[in-house]
Amino acid sequence: MQSMIRRKYNLTYAKLSAIGFFAIIFIGAVLLSLPISSKSGEVTPFINALFTATSATGVTGLVVYDTYSYFSVFGQSVILVLIKIGGLGFMIIATMFLLILKKKIGIRERNFLKESVNTIHIGGVVRLAKHILVGTLLLEGIGAIILAIKFSSEMGVKEGIFNGIFHSVSAFNNAGFDLMGRYEEYSSLIRYSDDALVNITIMTLIVIGGIGFLVWEDIYKNKAKFKKYHLHSKIVLLATMVLIFSAAIGFYVLERNNLFADMGIKETILASLFQAITPRTAGFNTIDTAELSEGSKLLTMILMFIGGSSGSTAGGIKTTTFIITILSVVSLVRHSNDLNIFGRRLEDSILKRAYSIITIYITSAFIGMLFISFIQPELALSNTAFEVLSAMGTVGLSTGITRQLNALSRLMVIILMFCGRLGSLAVLMAVAESKNNISTKKPLEKIVIG
Amino acid sequence: MQSMIRRKYNLTYAKLSAIGFFAIIFIGAVLLSLPISSKSGEVTPFINALFTATSATGVTGLVVYDTYSYFSVFGQSVILVLIKIGGLGFMIIATMFLLILKKKIGIRERNFLKESVNTIHIGGVVRLAKHILVGTLLLEGIGAIILAIKFSSEMGVKEGIFNGIFHSVSAFNNAGFDLMGRYEEYSSLIRYSDDALVNITIMTLIVIGGIGFLVWEDIYKNKAKFKKYHLHSKIVLLATMVLIFSAAIGFYVLERNNLFADMGIKETILASLFQAITPRTAGFNTIDTAELSEGSKLLTMILMFIGGSSGSTAGGIKTTTFIITILSVVSLVRHSNDLNIFGRRLEDSILKRAYSIITIYITSAFIGMLFISFIQPELALSNTAFEVLSAMGTVGLSTGITRQLNALSRLMVIILMFCGRLGSLAVLMAVAESKNNISTKKPLEKIVIG
Ligand SMILES: [K+]
Ligand SMILES: [K+]
Repeated sequence: MQSMIRRKYNLTYAKLSAIGFFAIIFIGAVLLSLPISSKSGEVTPFINALFTATSATGVTGLVVYDTYSYFSVFGQSVILVLIKIGGLGFMIIATMFLLILKKKIGIRERNFLKESVNTIHIGGVVRLAKHILVGTLLLEGIGAIILAIKFSSEMGVKEGIFNGIFHSVSAFNNAGFDLMGRYEEYSSLIRYSDDALVNITIMTLIVIGGIGFLVWEDIYKNKAKFKKYHLHSKIVLLATMVLIFSAAIGFYVLERNNLFADMGIKETILASLFQAITPRTAGFNTIDTAELSEGSKLLTMILMFIGGSSGSTAGGIKTTTFIITILSVVSLVRHSNDLNIFGRRLEDSILKRAYSIITIYITSAFIGMLFISFIQPELALSNTAFEVLSAMGTVGLSTGITRQLNALSRLMVIILMFCGRLGSLAVLMAVAESKNNISTKKPLEKIVIG
Repeated sequence: MQSMIRRKYNLTYAKLSAIGFFAIIFIGAVLLSLPISSKSGEVTPFINALFTATSATGVTGLVVYDTYSYFSVFGQSVILVLIKIGGLGFMIIATMFLLILKKKIGIRERNFLKESVNTIHIGGVVRLAKHILVGTLLLEGIGAIILAIKFSSEMGVKEGIFNGIFHSVSAFNNAGFDLMGRYEEYSSLIRYSDDALVNITIMTLIVIGGIGFLVWEDIYKNKAKFKKYHLHSKIVLLATMVLIFSAAIGFYVLERNNLFADMGIKETILASLFQAITPRTAGFNTIDTAELSEGSKLLTMILMFIGGSSGSTAGGIKTTTFIITILSVVSLVRHSNDLNIFGRRLEDSILKRAYSIITIYITSAFIGMLFISFIQPELALSNTAFEVLSAMGTVGLSTGITRQLNALSRLMVIILMFCGRLGSLAVLMAVAESKNNISTKKPLEKIVIG
C-alpha cells in the first residue's frame, strides 16, 4: 500500500520535472524567436529557436546558429539564463530524483532503507538546494574571474567580463555554448588550444561540474580521506580518472600523425586532455571535430555514450552504469554472484537498472539514427551517429551536420536532447502507466542464451 | 567440491573446442595455400589462406578472394568441407556446450538441475549427434536437389550439381560463401534477386539452419503443438518471426526510393525479406550491400549485432539475449522483479549472463573498430563498423572493404571471426584462470546509477 502511494508520487514527480523543463524551454524559445534576440533584428523561425532553447536549457550545446554572430546580446543573455536555469534546476531536481529512486529501490530491501536515508538527509532538501546554489555560484565565480581577466586583455573589459561569465557558466554546467564566433564562426575554443590558462580553467570547471553534487558533498565533508567517501563517490572519481587518462592516451595515439602532427608538446598534452574531457558531456572543442581521424571519432562516440556522473548535468549512460557493466562481466568470469568493488558488494537490483538504462539508451539512439537516415539519406551514417550520441549525451560536439538537418531531423534532435537531459529512464517512467504489479509468481523455466 | 570439479571440466571443455577449431582452421589454411587450391596454380599468401579458412570454418563468409574466380575446384571443395565441418562440428559442440552451461547454472539452483537434465537427456549425446547429423544431411540434400535442378539449366548438369550442393550447404550452415563469380565477381546472389525459387529455397535453408538444434528437436517432437514447446524454442521462434518481418518492412521503407525504386512487387517483396534474413548470420546478398542507403546499413548492423539463435551456426549476441534485454526493461518499467514471458518466469541469473555477453560483445566490437581505424585511418568508420560487426556476427556481408584491409587488419578480422564463432563468452571462459570463488560476502552498499 505504502509502496503504491510512493510509486504514484514518483510518477507525478517525474512528470512534473518533465513538464517544468518543457515549460522553461518553451518560454526560452518564444524569447529567442523575438526580433530583439537576433543581431539582425529578424524573427527567428520557431523550430530553430526551440532547438536553441532546448540545447541551452538541456546544456547540450548543439547549435544551428553561431551564438555570437546570430544572436544579439539580449539573445545571448537569454541563452546564458537558460543554461543557468537548466544546469542548476537539473542538478537540484536530479539530486532529489536520485534520492527518491534510492528510496524506491529500498522498498524491496527494507534493510537498506535506513542506510539510503543516512546517505543524505531527505529532510534537509532545502539545505541541500542551498548548498548546490552556493557551491555552484562560488565555482562559476572563480572561473568567471580567471577567464574575464584573460578575455579582457583581448576584447576589452566590458566584453571580457561578459565573456568570462558566459564561458565559465557554460563550462561549469557543461553546456558547451561559446561566443568565439567573434573570431571565427563555430570555432569553439580552437583558438585557445595552446593556451594553458584557458584550457586548465575550462577543463577544471567541466570536470567539477560533471562529477555531480553527491561527490562534491563527499569531498567537502571528508576532504582527502578517500576511504570515508561513499561508494558512489569512489566509483565516480575512479571512473572519471580512468576514462580521462586512458582517453587522452587514446586520442594522442590516434591523432599523433593527424591533427597533433604539427603541435608542440604542451599543445599536444593540452589537446589530448581536453579532447578526453569534452566528449563525456562538455561539448567545447579545441581541435576541429570534423577533422578528427575515424578512430578518434569512434572514441569520442564511445565517451559520449558513457557520459558523466549521476546527479550532474552530464548525459550518457553515466559512469556508474559503465562501471557496473564491467563489474558484472568480472563477476561472471570469476563464477561469482556478487558485484564487488572497493570492498563493498552492490545490491543485485542495480544490475537490472543499469542494463535497462543501457538498453533504452541504445534503442533510443538507434531510433534517432534510423529516423534521421530515413529523412535525410544524404547524410553520412557516421556523422548522423555522432550527432545523435552528442544530442543524447547532452555533449554538443558535432562533425558539422547540425545546420544541414532539415526541420524534421531538427525536431528529432530536439526530442533526443530533451530525453538525454531528463534521462531516458525518467522519460519512460513519466510516460509509463502505473501498473499493478502485485501478481502471483510465474513458474520458473530456463532458457539458453549466448 | 563437486562444483569445482565441474568448473575445471568446463574450462577444459571450452579450451578443447577452441583448440579443435583452431586446428581445423590451420589445416584448412595450409591446404588452401597450396598451388593446387588456386586456379592460377600460385601459392596463396598464408594470411589470406588463413583468412579464408577461418571464414569458411567459422561459417562467416567474408572473402579476400572471389571464391569462384580465385580458387580451383579443389580449393572450392576444401572450402565446402571446412564449412561442413565448421557448421556441423559447431552445432554438435554448441549443443553439448549449452547443455553443460545449463548444468553449471543449475549448480547454484539445485532445484532446477533436474528440469535442465530432463530437457535433453545428457546420457544420449551420441543419439543427439546422430539426430543432428541426419537432420542436417536431409535438409541440405533437399536444398541441394532444388538448387541443382535450377543451376543445371544454366551451367550444365555437372556444374549444376556441384553448385547446388555448395550453395545448399553454404546456406544451411549460414556460411554465405558462393560461386557466383562465374557471372560477376563478388556478386553473391544479386543475379537471382527476382527468382522466387532460389530466394525461397535459400531463405528457408538459412532460417532453418539459424534457429538451432534445440528448436528443431521441439518442432520434431511436438509438431504444431506450440504450447508444448520449451520456453527456449518459443522465444527463438517469436524473436525470429518478429525480427524478420519488422526488418523486412524497415528495409522496404528505407530502400523504397533507392535500390527498390526500379523493382516490381515480387522482386521488392523477395529482396525485402532476403535482406531481413541475411544479416542475422547468413551473409548472402541479393542486392548490393555497398549501395544500401545509410539507414539500411545501420539496420543491417543492428541485425548483425542481434544475430541468430543459440545452438545454431549463427553469431551475434543471439535472439534470446536480445529478448531478455527487452524483458528486463519491461519488468523495470512495471516495477516488477521478474522476467516473465509465455507465462513463465526466467531465472534471475540469466540477466547477468545476457548482459555480460552484450558487454563483452560491444567491447570487442569497439576494440576491433578502434584497431582497424588506427591501422588504416583511410577507411570510413561506417564501413569499418560494418565489417567488424559482420565478422563478429559470422555474417559475411561487407560494404566491400575486406580486400582493402592490410595484413594487420586482416589478422584482426580473423581473430574477430574466430571469437564470433566460438562466442566471446566461451573464449573468455577458456582463457580465464580458474579462480577460487568461495569467499566471504562483502558488506552491501548502494550506489546511484542512471
Ligand atoms: K554539453
Ligand atoms: K555467414
